[in-house]
Amino acid sequence: MKRPIGIFDSGVGGLTLLKAVHEQLPNEDILYLGDLARLPYGTKSTEIVRKYALKVAEYLADQQVKLLLVACHTVSSVAMEVLKAHFEVLPVLGVLEPGVISAMHHSQNKHVLVVGTEGTIASKAYVQAIQQKEPHFKVSQLSCGLWVAMAEEGWLEGQLVEEIIRKGLAPLWEDPSFETVDTILLGCTHFPILQKSIQQVVGDRYVVDPAIQTTHMVKDLLIAKQLHNQTGNPGKVRLMVTDSPTRFVKVAQYFLGERLGNQSVELIHL
Amino acid sequence: MKRPIGIFDSGVGGLTLLKAVHEQLPNEDILYLGDLARLPYGTKSTEIVRKYALKVAEYLADQQVKLLLVACHTVSSVAMEVLKAHFEVLPVLGVLEPGVISAMHHSQNKHVLVVGTEGTIASKAYVQAIQQKEPHFKVSQLSCGLWVAMAEEGWLEGQLVEEIIRKGLAPLWEDPSFETVDTILLGCTHFPILQKSIQQVVGDRYVVDPAIQTTHMVKDLLIAKQLHNQTGNPGKVRLMVTDSPTRFVKVAQYFLGERLGNQSVELIHL
Repeated sequence: MKRPIGIFDSGVGGLTLLKAVHEQLPNEDILYLGDLARLPYGTKSTEIVRKYALKVAEYLADQQVKLLLVACHTVSSVAMEVLKAHFEVLPVLGVLEPGVISAMHHSQNKHVLVVGTEGTIASKAYVQAIQQKEPHFKVSQLSCGLWVAMAEEGWLEGQLVEEIIRKGLAPLWEDPSFETVDTILLGCTHFPILQKSIQQVVGDRYVVDPAIQTTHMVKDLLIAKQLHNQTGNPGKVRLMVTDSPTRFVKVAQYFLGERLGNQSVELIHL
Repeated sequence: MKRPIGIFDSGVGGLTLLKAVHEQLPNEDILYLGDLARLPYGTKSTEIVRKYALKVAEYLADQQVKLLLVACHTVSSVAMEVLKAHFEVLPVLGVLEPGVISAMHHSQNKHVLVVGTEGTIASKAYVQAIQQKEPHFKVSQLSCGLWVAMAEEGWLEGQLVEEIIRKGLAPLWEDPSFETVDTILLGCTHFPILQKSIQQVVGDRYVVDPAIQTTHMVKDLLIAKQLHNQTGNPGKVRLMVTDSPTRFVKVAQYFLGERLGNQSVELIHL
């Protein structure tokens, strides 16, 4: 089916997922929408995040997307039920479930640390999702809001970056209840671009980027529902934002690993 | 006159100004409005910031404020003309003009460095305001977005904080065109709570918190227009926010230097 996949995020973070999906499903058209006018979602309340998510999702649904992929972990944590109830037919997939599957698979000690924004951590959605599958699985959590700003500034590696990461993860070494953590789940779309530095800090603990498993699940879902594009033509990517693209274009290079032109991003009013 | 002063900001940052105004004008009632649902303003476009600022300002005008005090440097940099044109009678005062007066007064070398958010720096409003008064005055600028996140996390002092500040100010030591800077203007409401650490990093350069001069100007304006409260009763402070106050209350302690109760902040829908 030729209709596009819709991916949405509050800002640029979801571009890491866009990149993974585009690489794995090169024939699929993709519409990406970054809600720059209202970002960030990670520090805002559940009620406001649900309201914003519905607004953005409705816009993408009007664009005839065949699948709504929620790249934002905060939305995936607090608004999936609302979105699924709102769109009865349109399939909606978030990044929480894939991240959970991947992290549980890798943790030998059955103890995962989830790092994310304040909103994601406060929702305890990751804890609930993991313990629903396996009640005795241990889940620790840390809110690392400063990492978002750091990623957007393009501070991706170096001694200072590692020190900031180490400060955010301090309980790993200081709190005995974190001792058996062997797997760290990156519960925010900004964190995969810091993965090299995070790995450096956490040593031999396994670091999970949910984008990989998410992409597998997107592929499976499209095939199962016979929604995949069988034309064999290369897929087109269309980028849309709700505020001036200037900053988006600048920051996007850290997430996409390539430069965008200003004219490659459309401004829409929502 | 018994009507309140209206202070608005995108979030908690303006509380440093609220505190200064309340201390200097203890008989004045104050309405403070933090636009948490749409924060931050500092990374958003001029168009969006003007739209949000008008919405918030109209709400405060409806509450019969006698003076609209814009605590946010981004709004003060890009939306003052729009606000002043919109409210013909209501006096509107921003933090840019007071900061400029104070910085120019203190700089012996006639070379000021303005530090602020991306939006404030990109607008070049401080450069224009200073050079309009004195064309040969040198104004350098640096955008220090990470400091906002750092302040909101409550990272206010210590070695790591100073290293992050030093990285933001690196041109002071590395770029010869910054060599004569002797005065640093804190062009973001978040930065005064980092002032001690900033001062530590910049040595004997003078650091300007515009709140002091702003408070003087508020006082002068109220007296000149006979708007000051002459009843002698202690003024009441009312805090309002446009999203859940939970995080506001938590972060406010760094800005006010005291804890707030959850019930002391009203949620309004805008």
